[in-house]
Amino acid sequence: MIYQNDLILRAARGENTERTPVWLMRQAGRILKEYRAVREKAGDFKTLVETPALAAEVTIQPVDILGVDAAIIFSDILVVPDAMGCRYEMIEARGPNFPMVVRNMTDLQKIHIADPADLAYVTDAIALTVKQLDGRVPLIGFAGAPWTIFAYMTEGKGSKTFSIAKKLLYTDPKFAHALLEMITTSTIAYLKAQIAAGAAMVQLFDSWAGILSPVQYAEFSSRYIRVICEAITEVPVTVFAKGAFFALEDFTTMSCNTIGLDWNMDPADARKRVGADFTLQGNMDPCLLYAQPEVIQKETEAMLKDFGPHRYIANLGHGVYPDTPVEHVKAFIQTVKSYKH
Amino acid sequence: MIYQNDLILRAARGENTERTPVWLMRQAGRILKEYRAVREKAGDFKTLVETPALAAEVTIQPVDILGVDAAIIFSDILVVPDAMGCRYEMIEARGPNFPMVVRNMTDLQKIHIADPADLAYVTDAIALTVKQLDGRVPLIGFAGAPWTIFAYMTEGKGSKTFSIAKKLLYTDPKFAHALLEMITTSTIAYLKAQIAAGAAMVQLFDSWAGILSPVQYAEFSSRYIRVICEAITEVPVTVFAKGAFFALEDFTTMSCNTIGLDWNMDPADARKRVGADFTLQGNMDPCLLYAQPEVIQKETEAMLKDFGPHRYIANLGHGVYPDTPVEHVKAFIQTVKSYKH
Repeated sequence: MIYQNDLILRAARGENTERTPVWLMRQAGRILKEYRAVREKAGDFKTLVETPALAAEVTIQPVDILGVDAAIIFSDILVVPDAMGCRYEMIEARGPNFPMVVRNMTDLQKIHIADPADLAYVTDAIALTVKQLDGRVPLIGFAGAPWTIFAYMTEGKGSKTFSIAKKLLYTDPKFAHALLEMITTSTIAYLKAQIAAGAAMVQLFDSWAGILSPVQYAEFSSRYIRVICEAITEVPVTVFAKGAFFALEDFTTMSCNTIGLDWNMDPADARKRVGADFTLQGNMDPCLLYAQPEVIQKETEAMLKDFGPHRYIANLGHGVYPDTPVEHVKAFIQTVKSYKH
Repeated sequence: MIYQNDLILRAARGENTERTPVWLMRQAGRILKEYRAVREKAGDFKTLVETPALAAEVTIQPVDILGVDAAIIFSDILVVPDAMGCRYEMIEARGPNFPMVVRNMTDLQKIHIADPADLAYVTDAIALTVKQLDGRVPLIGFAGAPWTIFAYMTEGKGSKTFSIAKKLLYTDPKFAHALLEMITTSTIAYLKAQIAAGAAMVQLFDSWAGILSPVQYAEFSSRYIRVICEAITEVPVTVFAKGAFFALEDFTTMSCNTIGLDWNMDPADARKRVGADFTLQGNMDPCLLYAQPEVIQKETEAMLKDFGPHRYIANLGHGVYPDTPVEHVKAFIQTVKSYKH
């Protein structure tokens, strides 16, 4: 595939770029009125995720409207447990809920390793998006990191502490590893299917990394991220583990290309810790985008200066908040695109 | 005051201790059936906080039942905004709610610097507790750090992102500093009143430290913690800023004695970063206490070994979870008390 704009791929591979590429986590979403219109047409979130034509439409919206340097397929990390037989429902204003949870060896009999064919609605959406993008920008695929998926499958819903999920790591590590293995195998097959359908790079989201201790993280999360990174050789891989400041050095021993940073990380400190061989992605506080455009410009320029021109992809340190004014998002993107190092 | 057991004070001051002292954040609370009985008698949480005889009773319970080396006054960090004229209500199973929030310069007219006389229910509870403890162990006083109190006063309730509170830091920093100043002044007077009533050490809880970027944290949180630390010269001060791994070095430039660590921190790394002149407190994952006692013992011993015998106070890295079996809490405490370095 030849891209008209391949800045993000070059940045991920460590090649020179004329300027810093930029995209936003959750750019295809509620910040755009055009998204909200499609979402309403779909009726509910899961229908939107499972209807390739609609998913492709909202995936491309931010490329057209915001001018970002990459699209990311509109989907949800929870499609993997869904395809493993652990169905989720998305409850308006409350989040995901799993009517059946998986908490012991016996429960494992009720689920199975996901068959990518059961996730054809995602790979079809990817293929359709790639076709419609027609080489304008690359499309990013993604999946949840095994620990984060494990947290939802065991807890059954979002949680401040995920104490049910974490408890299992201490009380039944054998079960925890068995489930994590199943998720890992499912995720590798799923990401490979996304790549086969046209995803030009992939990102692993470890949204609940930050609730584990460093020792638990090494045992129950990063070891499975490592396995996935090793398995994905086709395209650049990004690891974004929110709150896992303690694992940065560990990620540099994996075969990933880009390390995502949340807004708690100091750019210079992160660069010192990861060295020169990895691309960094992030890490503006999403709340900055509530500020006036001139403040956004000033703070974004400070961030760009801190990260420097090489091996860097500008982004927020978390998904953009749904009530962010779209003009403010544009100010962020425009600042990155016009910045001269 | 002569204490029969002053291990925690000596550890805080950097003196030798025969063994590591231990207490638990939220030790006076729902883990104890004796607490639940008093809580039921009180009717609601705020009545319990505001009735000195009952607050003293539940404060002393963990000393009797668990054998901890310190009591911590049963209270709430939100009594300070309450005394500033920003009342809160505690909603069962949901948490705090502020019917009136403070979000701009005009709103500041509606509140005032807290008069410690309006917090006599706390200082009376402290005096009563100290009398009833009769020198068995020291009593710890506490307050919320100004940023955390600001977060509640502006947001009006708990939040995953505190995006309303954080937005104000970007959109109206002048107001933010004005409110933070008022909270800081209120907190200093309040802590001094606690000390006058008999608190032998005090702890600042910056529960929402981790949602700020390092730059914002320096500007809107740690500068006010510094002011408080400088003002409190009478007793040892502990700073516990959850999630503020990036601020450890900054805390070592303040006149505090002890730095609390959450369970994301690696003990050896923390010690290296703070040096030898500060006592560390923490930092076991509260979820460990769901494990079987033999696992608790093994992991607790590993933690004790990691922190070493000097300048260390054993604790969890967060408040104990309410559904923790009390026998497991005892296993943690007993392991610390019988450990030989």
